[in-house]
Amino acid sequence: MKARGLFITIEGIDGAGKGTQIDHICSYMETEGIELILLREPGGTSIGEQIRGILLGQNNAEMKAMTELLLFAAARAQLVREVIEPALAEGKWILCDRFFDSTLAYQAGGRGLDRDMVQQSILLATGGLEPDLTLYLDLDPDVASERRARREESLGNEADRIEREDMIFKRAVRAEYLRLAAELERIVTIDAGGDPLSVWYEIQQTLTPLVQKHRGGK
Amino acid sequence: MKARGLFITIEGIDGAGKGTQIDHICSYMETEGIELILLREPGGTSIGEQIRGILLGQNNAEMKAMTELLLFAAARAQLVREVIEPALAEGKWILCDRFFDSTLAYQAGGRGLDRDMVQQSILLATGGLEPDLTLYLDLDPDVASERRARREESLGNEADRIEREDMIFKRAVRAEYLRLAAELERIVTIDAGGDPLSVWYEIQQTLTPLVQKHRGGK
Repeated sequence: MKARGLFITIEGIDGAGKGTQIDHICSYMETEGIELILLREPGGTSIGEQIRGILLGQNNAEMKAMTELLLFAAARAQLVREVIEPALAEGKWILCDRFFDSTLAYQAGGRGLDRDMVQQSILLATGGLEPDLTLYLDLDPDVASERRARREESLGNEADRIEREDMIFKRAVRAEYLRLAAELERIVTIDAGGDPLSVWYEIQQTLTPLVQKHRGGK
Repeated sequence: MKARGLFITIEGIDGAGKGTQIDHICSYMETEGIELILLREPGGTSIGEQIRGILLGQNNAEMKAMTELLLFAAARAQLVREVIEPALAEGKWILCDRFFDSTLAYQAGGRGLDRDMVQQSILLATGGLEPDLTLYLDLDPDVASERRARREESLGNEADRIEREDMIFKRAVRAEYLRLAAELERIVTIDAGGDPLSVWYEIQQTLTPLVQKHRGGK
């Protein structure tokens, strides 16, 4: 019987640089000869992508917060049962771009939905499955915004009301991520404020022992 | 302030004659001058109809039971918040073709999903809203099947394996409906075995006192 695979998730606010780091992780695992399946939430299955289409639909502005929560849960239920669980059982590794920590950070932290209800929806979707390791790319949204603002200023634009509201939301999302990271050992906080390559070195230091352990177990 | 409207649901296995009785109820309410909104589950909103499309999609045979449960919950969350709650607050009456009793009967009773999990998904979706009255059209699936079988036999067809499996499923669904009806006062069981007009008279006897009470309250 093959050893069970490893389930890694990557989290953070938009602009934290997840995409770049995902590329680094994929190249690294390929070099190390580890079969890694890259997934994204919501999506990763045919049914999940259909659900993603509803969630991101331009004409669905009337969507209620609870509907959104349950659609994320439905896509996740399918992803866990159709892809993640079978792949882990076959010894494959999974890297998932966002998982249920995003739901806690955005829906409970950002939108203020009751945390117990959010947790219930997560438990229904996952059946109790948790990541083995979560890489949380931490970036102060004010820092990210200042960088963007300097760029915009040089173009003669000003921050509008929606952007300011967006900042309050992003700060609440980050606060929830930090709360989770302080509480849960599986979450490793990575300072995403530096240049992309130094962020990658920090991630690599977390991954290398796991890869070596995997080799030893073979 | 207007008196709150009444929330009526109609339930039963396919073939129990819901469609015919819904027509009777709509005509009756129109005659009585009551504004009645007719809804169906899953659906009843633009987002709900998109979710319905996924649930009924011909190419979605790989859908897991939990995904299905959460998609029904998502469509219901939207229907409750976008349509049902506001309409009831405005004093309108609602007739909904299936509601959460269907989820209990089909997902817990029929498919054997854990009843506590099904109840949790329902509570998330409804926020605690329950129908004021549920008309359950009770029909023995064996009786329905015998009628159909006689028709098929006269055409020279035989029942196949899928039809027989379907019977076991339908019996489990009916058993759950009967269990719910025995437990909950809001559910009125209507014998749907007779001819459609006598079934309607039975339904009318249940509705008339509510309509009179509504008049008195005006």
